[in-house]
Amino acid sequence: MHIGMIGLGKMGFNMRERLRRAGVDVTGYDRNPDVSDVPDTDALVAALPSPRIIWLMLPAGAITAAVVEELSGGLDAGDILIDGGNSRFTQDQAHADRAAERGIGFVDVGVSGGVWGLENGYGLMVGGSDEDVATLMPVFDALRPEGERDESFVHVGAVGSGHYAKMVHNGIEYGVMQSLAEGYELLAKKDIVEDVAGTMHAWQKGTVIRSWLLDLMVRALRDDPGLEKISGYVEDSGEGRWTVEEAIANEVAAPAITAAVFARFVSRQNDSPAMKAVAALRNQFGGHAVRPAGERVTGSGTPSPGSENTGTEPTTAAGPS
Amino acid sequence: MHIGMIGLGKMGFNMRERLRRAGVDVTGYDRNPDVSDVPDTDALVAALPSPRIIWLMLPAGAITAAVVEELSGGLDAGDILIDGGNSRFTQDQAHADRAAERGIGFVDVGVSGGVWGLENGYGLMVGGSDEDVATLMPVFDALRPEGERDESFVHVGAVGSGHYAKMVHNGIEYGVMQSLAEGYELLAKKDIVEDVAGTMHAWQKGTVIRSWLLDLMVRALRDDPGLEKISGYVEDSGEGRWTVEEAIANEVAAPAITAAVFARFVSRQNDSPAMKAVAALRNQFGGHAVRPAGERVTGSGTPSPGSENTGTEPTTAAGPS
Amino acid sequence: MHIGMIGLGKMGFNMRERLRRAGVDVTGYDRNPDVSDVPDTDALVAALPSPRIIWLMLPAGAITAAVVEELSGGLDAGDILIDGGNSRFTQDQAHADRAAERGIGFVDVGVSGGVWGLENGYGLMVGGSDEDVATLMPVFDALRPEGERDESFVHVGAVGSGHYAKMVHNGIEYGVMQSLAEGYELLAKKDIVEDVAGTMHAWQKGTVIRSWLLDLMVRALRDDPGLEKISGYVEDSGEGRWTVEEAIANEVAAPAITAAVFARFVSRQNDSPAMKAVAALRNQFGGHAVRPAGERVTGSGTPSPGSENTGTEPTTAAGPS
Amino acid sequence: MHIGMIGLGKMGFNMRERLRRAGVDVTGYDRNPDVSDVPDTDALVAALPSPRIIWLMLPAGAITAAVVEELSGGLDAGDILIDGGNSRFTQDQAHADRAAERGIGFVDVGVSGGVWGLENGYGLMVGGSDEDVATLMPVFDALRPEGERDESFVHVGAVGSGHYAKMVHNGIEYGVMQSLAEGYELLAKKDIVEDVAGTMHAWQKGTVIRSWLLDLMVRALRDDPGLEKISGYVEDSGEGRWTVEEAIANEVAAPAITAAVFARFVSRQNDSPAMKAVAALRNQFGGHAVRPAGERVTGSGTPSPGSENTGTEPTTAAGPS
Repeated sequence: MHIGMIGLGKMGFNMRERLRRAGVDVTGYDRNPDVSDVPDTDALVAALPSPRIIWLMLPAGAITAAVVEELSGGLDAGDILIDGGNSRFTQDQAHADRAAERGIGFVDVGVSGGVWGLENGYGLMVGGSDEDVATLMPVFDALRPEGERDESFVHVGAVGSGHYAKMVHNGIEYGVMQSLAEGYELLAKKDIVEDVAGTMHAWQKGTVIRSWLLDLMVRALRDDPGLEKISGYVEDSGEGRWTVEEAIANEVAAPAITAAVFARFVSRQNDSPAMKAVAALRNQFGGHAVRPAGERVTGSGTPSPGSENTGTEPTTAAGPS
Repeated sequence: MHIGMIGLGKMGFNMRERLRRAGVDVTGYDRNPDVSDVPDTDALVAALPSPRIIWLMLPAGAITAAVVEELSGGLDAGDILIDGGNSRFTQDQAHADRAAERGIGFVDVGVSGGVWGLENGYGLMVGGSDEDVATLMPVFDALRPEGERDESFVHVGAVGSGHYAKMVHNGIEYGVMQSLAEGYELLAKKDIVEDVAGTMHAWQKGTVIRSWLLDLMVRALRDDPGLEKISGYVEDSGEGRWTVEEAIANEVAAPAITAAVFARFVSRQNDSPAMKAVAALRNQFGGHAVRPAGERVTGSGTPSPGSENTGTEPTTAAGPS
Repeated sequence: MHIGMIGLGKMGFNMRERLRRAGVDVTGYDRNPDVSDVPDTDALVAALPSPRIIWLMLPAGAITAAVVEELSGGLDAGDILIDGGNSRFTQDQAHADRAAERGIGFVDVGVSGGVWGLENGYGLMVGGSDEDVATLMPVFDALRPEGERDESFVHVGAVGSGHYAKMVHNGIEYGVMQSLAEGYELLAKKDIVEDVAGTMHAWQKGTVIRSWLLDLMVRALRDDPGLEKISGYVEDSGEGRWTVEEAIANEVAAPAITAAVFARFVSRQNDSPAMKAVAALRNQFGGHAVRPAGERVTGSGTPSPGSENTGTEPTTAAGPS
Repeated sequence: MHIGMIGLGKMGFNMRERLRRAGVDVTGYDRNPDVSDVPDTDALVAALPSPRIIWLMLPAGAITAAVVEELSGGLDAGDILIDGGNSRFTQDQAHADRAAERGIGFVDVGVSGGVWGLENGYGLMVGGSDEDVATLMPVFDALRPEGERDESFVHVGAVGSGHYAKMVHNGIEYGVMQSLAEGYELLAKKDIVEDVAGTMHAWQKGTVIRSWLLDLMVRALRDDPGLEKISGYVEDSGEGRWTVEEAIANEVAAPAITAAVFARFVSRQNDSPAMKAVAALRNQFGGHAVRPAGERVTGSGTPSPGSENTGTEPTTAAGPS
């Protein structure tokens, strides 16, 4: 089998390698010539046997859409396009429709596994027609971990369902990471816990919460037991947000996943407009002293001296409320 | 009527004044001699007619407990102690029991109204015996706003119930403030809203959310339309925490109130251990770049260039997940 | 002044009446002939002086869009369309653009006040051009409460901003209602609170949380002190959902408002798929007994006897976890 | 080695068996004579070599406390008591102090693994003195899974820290289960997901969220793909609540874990007082129709016909708000 792959970043680069190790020929294209096998997509299309199979591993959104558009014009009936990036599932049908105008098949694949997938294999969630999926099975089998196919591969349903399943997977991932993080903070703040890293380490076998994310947490703590080298500034990619939007659209209460998304928003704020408003309100009704903007926020959570009292106030008195 | 008041801070000082304006004699004691009428509590006790009525307006916890203990030893049967501070309702019965050993009555009062109570009157939630409450009605009537008694005074039930009701009141207050604050941030972040302060101003009459806290928000924005002078660092007093604990104890889901309490915790952190953990996890599974500790957190929420990509990575590629 | 109003439901019907009382002539149309002044929209258009002003008070979405489309074809340059319904702000620009093709002005107005607006007046949040808004001021002044204009009227910004502000207003409303509701449950579950309705009644004057929604809560409890006649099944209209979606889109943490939306979703479920999943998991790892589907859920929150233990298990033993 | 074990339920019964398979002699007592090795605790104490080691595996709270009290009176200096149940960590020091009055050692152990621990081994989190822990290592090594000790055993710190770590572990477990459950509902509600069980099955290998709890979810779905046989009524044991309380006490925002606890509370309510209050409020301000109590709640989330409109209202009109 011989396929094309466009987008050779952290994911695509490793996937090309895993496919090759499994005996699948891959011609890869990336705009970075250091990793690309061909100079451009035309060369990639020309290099592939017919019917062509081209796997896109590109940033979701405009870039993926542009490449789908370009290839839909350059491929032939019977070829198959695969979008393996983190596209929003709501985009897939439009891409499939565009491809179908020329008789080109379209399959969306949610790919999970991160940088570890090269060695471990990738979890795959696939949306598309039975026929296209059947054609692609050798590719999927090469990418997924060895062992039972059903444990790492699923044909979820029609076009869009693969990315929907991946979105939900990532939404769960947000919630699990937030849960582990809350637990970490609860351990780290407690004096009687003398060995935070050791405690999480000891959860890896036998416990109910043993999991790969826990294993990674242990790895991170091994390198930096107090997480002193890292800032608590956390980006979010689209899937967490989309999961909340799908929760709203489908009337599903998703408080844990949503809490995880909101916590990331707050982590990136230097100062929160909302909390300024709360501080202003407290000042209004209770005369509670406020911190001037720009005063360094301390991490201790300990009120600064006098923060609840004005200077002339008798300190025995009950504060207002 | 002639009562004693111990604790003349922002609340007690104003309450003494409001009582006096209403014709209630008040002998006040505070450890700050500038505001105190008498040099010590012995002098206060000696100054009061029998049966004595002494209103405590002190910080909750050890200080209130110590003064209850002291007075329980110095008062006589038939006297009444009132705890009007923000004591936890779980403390009241012990205080009442201690007072009862000497035949002293005990009444707990939740007092709401903040620094505005002097002019507006205070909302009062009272726990205690029918007899004690009846004795104290002239005091309560002087403190509460004019008009219908039932709109600002309630005898909630037995000892402890006044502070319980006040705790719930304050829990609701947390949730309402948080809701207003979230709305403020939603207005402030949106370009098409050209007049944030004016918008909240226009909610004061006619709308469903008209309220005193909204009025205070408008006042705060009048002085500082962008809340630029204030930091989003928010203390919390005990009532919010106790409300969450009572929610847990009584199996009541209280997600809005709890969110308000947690938001305050986070507002006081310079960096969040939990979010460090999430950042560390993302780095582990996806090779997502992290911010070194100490790197200045920007307020924009915009990813710094390259924050999701390592230097050598082709920028067209889909990131891992 | 003489305007048209289309949609004479609970809101539009009362608004027509309030306008008329203030001396504004209103020709109203509704598909219900009992309340309509004219047989159809053509007749309404014909009845109005030029330049025409037509206020739409229709269900958001398809119905409003259809009427905007219809009128955009039938009105003339210089006429003004007002959308006073709860349309999503993201729809407004398209409606304004459609109207502008014929030189028709478009103004979006968020209207708050519910069925009480007839007597109290309505809070108004307006988006549109300065010129159109100036033309409409007599209408706005008739609808809003008497007194200071700025307390119930705001020109928020360009087209769309009025509905955006109304959306945020309603989002806050969700959070405030949820907060009051959590407080209500905390009072209702506590034995020492002997008078739940009386306690909330006493919060109406003097307290920090005094508000119109609290006044309404007191009214509801006056009629039905234990809320025994009402089911805890709560619909949600669009604004709450849109607020969460805007929170996501603008990276604003809105946990209290979101909690309110999710609580409504859950209130409408007879059984929760998510909680079935949690029950299934507990059964898997711990052998915790589960309830068969269809077994009546009790309201007490008290575990049924033996619910944590299988029949043959020694009851002294620690359960698994 | 020869130890005693008191409490032979789902956990203790299996632990006795695992210890015996590893060559540790165990004399077990349970009040259920079918599983007990001795008729009473006196017999158990008499059967053990000195210094005695007795492992308690009892329900947390009064039962554990009573047995600690009883044994503290009957054991000798140098003996060691182990509390392996789910006791609250705040109880441990009192138990240790009571035991220490007679020179008896006390060690608290958090044990995780559920009914699967017999075969898989148990995760162990231990609090106590270095000396006592060293003495007990053969017991711990027999209970934990084979392989690296540090992956399933940790000496967290002094007395109480083992149960604290277990509490945090279980708090995380709550959050992870809730996250998986939210994801399950998002899959189950979406038509394009044709194979919910298969999708979760495919997450078991290669994905970021692979975990033992996911494995259990897959098991549950294998038996009952739509979870149709199970009710979404979920008990909670103490650890989830305690985790929230510790979050409050230590100023740790724990929104995901708390959401999980609250979701369980709601799952057990037949009707929610809070949501009755919200329904009552909506009815007050908007005339929104409410459902009479006792009317069967439908699971569809679809509004009943006319639920937002009163009978006489024109259906084209915008509802109030």
